[in-house]
Amino acid sequence: MTPEVFKRAIQQLSKLPGVGEKTASRLVFFILKTDPSYVKNLCSSLLSLREKLKLCEECFSLSETNLCVICKNPSRDKSLLCVIETPQDLVAIEKSRKFSGIYHILHGRLSPLDGITPNKIKIDELLVRLKRGAIREVILALNPNMEGETTALYLSKLIKPRGIKITHLAQGIPMGSDLEYIDEVTMGRAITHRIEL
Amino acid sequence: MTPEVFKRAIQQLSKLPGVGEKTASRLVFFILKTDPSYVKNLCSSLLSLREKLKLCEECFSLSETNLCVICKNPSRDKSLLCVIETPQDLVAIEKSRKFSGIYHILHGRLSPLDGITPNKIKIDELLVRLKRGAIREVILALNPNMEGETTALYLSKLIKPRGIKITHLAQGIPMGSDLEYIDEVTMGRAITHRIEL
Repeated sequence: MTPEVFKRAIQQLSKLPGVGEKTASRLVFFILKTDPSYVKNLCSSLLSLREKLKLCEECFSLSETNLCVICKNPSRDKSLLCVIETPQDLVAIEKSRKFSGIYHILHGRLSPLDGITPNKIKIDELLVRLKRGAIREVILALNPNMEGETTALYLSKLIKPRGIKITHLAQGIPMGSDLEYIDEVTMGRAITHRIEL
Repeated sequence: MTPEVFKRAIQQLSKLPGVGEKTASRLVFFILKTDPSYVKNLCSSLLSLREKLKLCEECFSLSETNLCVICKNPSRDKSLLCVIETPQDLVAIEKSRKFSGIYHILHGRLSPLDGITPNKIKIDELLVRLKRGAIREVILALNPNMEGETTALYLSKLIKPRGIKITHLAQGIPMGSDLEYIDEVTMGRAITHRIEL
């Protein structure tokens, strides 16, 4: 019924996360109606994304060069290291504009049940960086869930003997939320770590 | 902060309908993690979509050849013509598997306020097809809203003098809906056109 190129485009688009067959067909009709240069620009940008992006040799964030923009920046505080799970987390922290240190991206979190043991994520690489001695404080900015907290605990045991200060992100009530709907663990932590005005 | 290729990909993806900056960044990270062959297949399918797809000379549906699969199919009833607004509508009707005739795609509907006058959509082309005399019935499957119904009325006035049977899609309660939430116009039509069991 529908042309082959049409079906193929829908099939490929449906592989994207959150895109089902219906959304894919909507995207296809959009692409057919829009300026032909758009699809060329889109594709060239996606292809160069895969070709040009690599991991920073130092912090393992996404970079077009061997050292990423943050590691190369002389005004970043090289003694303050923030350990995160994914490049997405880096984007979220950078958007806050409150962090002036450098990062270390683990590319995952410990999850023995899924076969993710310490050697599967960038923990050895973190220890090598710490051994160089320039780092004064490590912020463990892992996700606030079982696996994230397990990873944080594991890392803190490895880092503590080196005499480096270890911190983690403050937990509490998020901005714009409704106290009525806050889960009990978050509420408990918000009360325990309440701040004096 | 983020690499240029990364920003560019997000910018291009954000132009897709229903894709904001957040979804775009999720897609970018998906593309970065997935098999590199995927992005190549995706792009080749999107590019060939724009290059190869044209409009069928007969019914103006999307086709890779001068005549579309439906117009070329000898088992379709060439005396039953369904007039629709967009290629998307064709997909919806074909999925029902209840229509064995051929189509005519107007590529729009009359909307004088938006400057869409009869000469902007494929009405002349429809009249040329009707003149050839093979068509016995025209189903006006336009959208059930002001502009769709105006277009249907306009077409029916043009077609009626030719002695061709004109029908439109039945209107009523959609499957799986809740009577409580049916709007009054739909309910009224469902009552007026009630069917004897």
